[in-house]
Amino acid sequence: MILVLEDGLDAEGLERAERAVRRAGVDPRRMLAQGGRVAIHAVGLPRERVDEIPGVAFVLESAPPFKRVARRHADEPTHVVTVRGVAIGGTEIVLMAGPCAVEHAEQLEESARAAAAAGARLLRGGAFKPRTSPYSFQGLGEEGLRMLRVAADRHDLAVVTEVLEPNAVGLVSEYADMLQVGSRNMQNSALLRAVGRQSRPVLLKRGMSATLEEWLLAAEYIADAGNEEIVLCERGVRSFDMASRNLLDLAAVPLLRERTALPVAVDPSHGVGVKAAILPMALAAVAAGADAIMVECHPDPGTARSDGFQALTPDELARVGAQIRTVAAAIGRS
Amino acid sequence: MILVLEDGLDAEGLERAERAVRRAGVDPRRMLAQGGRVAIHAVGLPRERVDEIPGVAFVLESAPPFKRVARRHADEPTHVVTVRGVAIGGTEIVLMAGPCAVEHAEQLEESARAAAAAGARLLRGGAFKPRTSPYSFQGLGEEGLRMLRVAADRHDLAVVTEVLEPNAVGLVSEYADMLQVGSRNMQNSALLRAVGRQSRPVLLKRGMSATLEEWLLAAEYIADAGNEEIVLCERGVRSFDMASRNLLDLAAVPLLRERTALPVAVDPSHGVGVKAAILPMALAAVAAGADAIMVECHPDPGTARSDGFQALTPDELARVGAQIRTVAAAIGRS
Amino acid sequence: MILVLEDGLDAEGLERAERAVRRAGVDPRRMLAQGGRVAIHAVGLPRERVDEIPGVAFVLESAPPFKRVARRHADEPTHVVTVRGVAIGGTEIVLMAGPCAVEHAEQLEESARAAAAAGARLLRGGAFKPRTSPYSFQGLGEEGLRMLRVAADRHDLAVVTEVLEPNAVGLVSEYADMLQVGSRNMQNSALLRAVGRQSRPVLLKRGMSATLEEWLLAAEYIADAGNEEIVLCERGVRSFDMASRNLLDLAAVPLLRERTALPVAVDPSHGVGVKAAILPMALAAVAAGADAIMVECHPDPGTARSDGFQALTPDELARVGAQIRTVAAAIGRS
Amino acid sequence: MILVLEDGLDAEGLERAERAVRRAGVDPRRMLAQGGRVAIHAVGLPRERVDEIPGVAFVLESAPPFKRVARRHADEPTHVVTVRGVAIGGTEIVLMAGPCAVEHAEQLEESARAAAAAGARLLRGGAFKPRTSPYSFQGLGEEGLRMLRVAADRHDLAVVTEVLEPNAVGLVSEYADMLQVGSRNMQNSALLRAVGRQSRPVLLKRGMSATLEEWLLAAEYIADAGNEEIVLCERGVRSFDMASRNLLDLAAVPLLRERTALPVAVDPSHGVGVKAAILPMALAAVAAGADAIMVECHPDPGTARSDGFQALTPDELARVGAQIRTVAAAIGRS
Repeated sequence: MILVLEDGLDAEGLERAERAVRRAGVDPRRMLAQGGRVAIHAVGLPRERVDEIPGVAFVLESAPPFKRVARRHADEPTHVVTVRGVAIGGTEIVLMAGPCAVEHAEQLEESARAAAAAGARLLRGGAFKPRTSPYSFQGLGEEGLRMLRVAADRHDLAVVTEVLEPNAVGLVSEYADMLQVGSRNMQNSALLRAVGRQSRPVLLKRGMSATLEEWLLAAEYIADAGNEEIVLCERGVRSFDMASRNLLDLAAVPLLRERTALPVAVDPSHGVGVKAAILPMALAAVAAGADAIMVECHPDPGTARSDGFQALTPDELARVGAQIRTVAAAIGRS
Repeated sequence: MILVLEDGLDAEGLERAERAVRRAGVDPRRMLAQGGRVAIHAVGLPRERVDEIPGVAFVLESAPPFKRVARRHADEPTHVVTVRGVAIGGTEIVLMAGPCAVEHAEQLEESARAAAAAGARLLRGGAFKPRTSPYSFQGLGEEGLRMLRVAADRHDLAVVTEVLEPNAVGLVSEYADMLQVGSRNMQNSALLRAVGRQSRPVLLKRGMSATLEEWLLAAEYIADAGNEEIVLCERGVRSFDMASRNLLDLAAVPLLRERTALPVAVDPSHGVGVKAAILPMALAAVAAGADAIMVECHPDPGTARSDGFQALTPDELARVGAQIRTVAAAIGRS
Repeated sequence: MILVLEDGLDAEGLERAERAVRRAGVDPRRMLAQGGRVAIHAVGLPRERVDEIPGVAFVLESAPPFKRVARRHADEPTHVVTVRGVAIGGTEIVLMAGPCAVEHAEQLEESARAAAAAGARLLRGGAFKPRTSPYSFQGLGEEGLRMLRVAADRHDLAVVTEVLEPNAVGLVSEYADMLQVGSRNMQNSALLRAVGRQSRPVLLKRGMSATLEEWLLAAEYIADAGNEEIVLCERGVRSFDMASRNLLDLAAVPLLRERTALPVAVDPSHGVGVKAAILPMALAAVAAGADAIMVECHPDPGTARSDGFQALTPDELARVGAQIRTVAAAIGRS
Repeated sequence: MILVLEDGLDAEGLERAERAVRRAGVDPRRMLAQGGRVAIHAVGLPRERVDEIPGVAFVLESAPPFKRVARRHADEPTHVVTVRGVAIGGTEIVLMAGPCAVEHAEQLEESARAAAAAGARLLRGGAFKPRTSPYSFQGLGEEGLRMLRVAADRHDLAVVTEVLEPNAVGLVSEYADMLQVGSRNMQNSALLRAVGRQSRPVLLKRGMSATLEEWLLAAEYIADAGNEEIVLCERGVRSFDMASRNLLDLAAVPLLRERTALPVAVDPSHGVGVKAAILPMALAAVAAGADAIMVECHPDPGTARSDGFQALTPDELARVGAQIRTVAAAIGRS
């Protein structure tokens, strides 16, 4: 936002304006105009604080690129997305757990049982897997969807699972309660529109190196096609240190809060990809204000057909569930 | 780590080994040798878990690049660094607070009072400021150090402040209890050796785009010169999204735990640079396991001569202090 | 690649081996085994140079993740991809030019005329546009494809244009000679398989933050589905400096050469996104060994409906064409 | 730059202005003001083209952060920096070559002979080495400086070598003709001021993840201390793909041209760190407009004590020298 100051404002007036901008938590950058006019570039200054700044003639703003998913005003509460009766975005922090990929009925049954025991409300699991290599396991397809449904129903869980292409949206919606659009497809506009034209809530993962704005514009594609029931899911971005699989950007949680009323989930399993870091980062996500936590679990991580190394055992998952509740309570959530 | 498997191991033996690696939380990558021999690349497998893997003939490891600052074994407790009687790395989460730059006695007195009131144990503040531009305020120098000392003593706080060059180490040590090496100087080897040759504890900030290994090797310079009293401080790394000043890498906290026994601090003020994100990220840092939190505060952020936009007011600082204690209690710390 | 050295090799033998690795242009990293055995980690050592290294007992290699698109041996010439009679990957450096988006017949006619006059062999232009925002111009669809075909035919150019979803592959192939998969869809596996199941050559752009390996695995999806006529196109990756739109990674050209025989194109228009840098970077791409150059042009950049700021005028395009030929001649190409 | 348009301008007037901005190679972003006033954000629009834009009331610009090293006007020629009679920034493209580290007299003599034979004008070589690990070879110190001087004099070359700390500036200047400030010290303000207070020309390498603006501000520290004889050296930035050591940012060459009149060198040895890419990237740097090329060579890369893997043999260096001249001729330089 550019604050163009009154013509003829003196040095002291300029400083007064800059002080007010700094007090509002924003770094003022001075801009000079031909003819001595002065302006302040105030990146990120919330609209509702402009009135606090003295000496402003008029304000220039970039036309906001997203409309439907933008937070309307500073006090707008988080929009609650309901998935088969489970409210995401309310007081309760929702745990979503399950295996990376659906492999067989027994694995799923045990995963679902572990998830329910740990307090999870959604069962996750991939039936159509997006893989970097064409030679990796690509999922069981419809058979996997069916297994998900059966296991979830037995343990009273909702199902969230990924859809990879527009043509499969109908099929996946028959079995799932929430459709996931994965990182690799965050800018697949045909897919975004397809999930926007149906009524299941959507879990939209952040692209590998998407800015917050690009991510919100991807959400806008879905909303613009007619579906505003969207949960954003931070899952780490690409960075330069191979010590972790991705760099989990937890500050995205409070930064998204300022921009949108959509609820925000965090996936520490993909976000770090190192088992020892999953529990601490799940707790950190809760403390940062996340509305939901998604983790991978497997009854026997050693036999998992994908990403077994980052899957929690049932015991580890129970510990994550319990500690999440403790930290949630400390910040006034449940 | 490369696990070279026994000569003549069959396919089932190989799979057994891979399962064991996955169970240990590591992604096994198969390697093939001429003549049919097989090995497993197991990035990050802790040494003490090698015995769980069946069929291993011998293990190949990169010579570990850091020695003095490396965690000796999985159960080694965090090394406690004591700064004027304040223990960093113990049960208590230590709050360090103060202005970005020392400006005048009154500002410092009010900052110190606010810091003490919020429960902080160290007063931070720059007397020698590393600035991107030669035209930015470079600090008050020795006069600033003197003010820091006076204000800290009055409120029973220890002093941590930055030193920019080898020649100034002696001077800064006369006033400060802990010397800070900043991001821009993380690989300034002459400075690292200079702070290593004296006895004040050192706060070593992570470089703008330093990997964990490079950071630990910077710490190794200090330790190798004779000083092992080092606290590492995560302060965000460079990334592609201009929505925040830096990308705060909280997963560095648990990932460092596996590599070193040195205590770890987190600076959410520089790490995000957006005021609304400082409190949530301070809490997230505590939940992620940080031993200390460093934040900037200012009695009147609007008048600050540097980084005022990210400085907390005394009231905001008190809130951060109180909520940190609540989250700390939830995870069994204080 | 890990070179496990002979059991009982002495220090001098180890050094001899390391010297040979360094001479081959690779940084040797020593690995130690239990029981005193030693190995050398030689990242990127070409297979055919292993015989130069003395003292090697056996070699461990990661199973190569891509098979069909991998360079078979060091002397394998670049695979020539023929697009409507134009050979990409031979001696001639092929220029591809045209507008970002197809807007109307006249614009296309003038663009095609300018492209042909500048020596271009392919006409580029988007009829289906992948846009970050749902509110940006999304292209003219089939009407645009028809215009492309007409303009290209009149000036004896081949047509390359983007396809956004599996369902549109058939339609786009009716009009285009080469199908482009864009950055946002580099890991859209359904689309990769769909363009792999038809016979038009494919131009595969690099994803926003794709590693060379991920990019080649995306190509492998296409090849594995049956189509090996693929040209890779570098178009800049995401980085931290907002001074340019992307960071054009020209070293990808020689690094890809070592890994694959597929031809490599470079798009400096998207790669930098700053007009003054397009000509120098096009010449640099030729000097780096690119087989084709893709640039955007527009008869009147001021009226372009997308990316007009980075479009060359007909005169500028002619200059690019002429200078490319001069630099090509200097390195023995045409 | 923000172009605030005339009050009361109609939609057509706005479009006219936007077209003119696009024609000038810049992406116009519309900004809206309260009360219906409109502005255009035109990132990177050169000042001298503002007059082409119709309907502008006044222009807002950020106060330019660097002054002494800024290009004064669009036609300002490159400032020629003379190093012991060798002009950097003129028509001739200057080759700088030599070993990573000075090891012994014979190695240096052979390197200097190879450098001179290849057409190099400066001999490079480290006597004080900045190393990531305290256990790596740190250089021969003054003894190394003396060897550099002897070898360079015998072959009529100028000497460029790195200085690591303010205290060593005097010593290094006794032997060297040009002082190098390395990547790790690009923001070491004490060192920048120290090389700014003496009269030898300075080669300023880009920091690991420095933006162009930060790099120019580092140069400004040197200029502000009194020394404007500065050559900037691009050497690759940090990125996410481990296929290369760094990502060589050749577009920095034309982008710096627009911002500064200082000459620009490129170091493809560190910039890529893969031997097979050095020759192509050296040629690409010339084609992109670099004024000087710096490469590492070694009479026997296998025995080098640092970075031997990326060192060229004398034969390879001769080839680089010859081909650089051919490409230089193709673009009208020598």
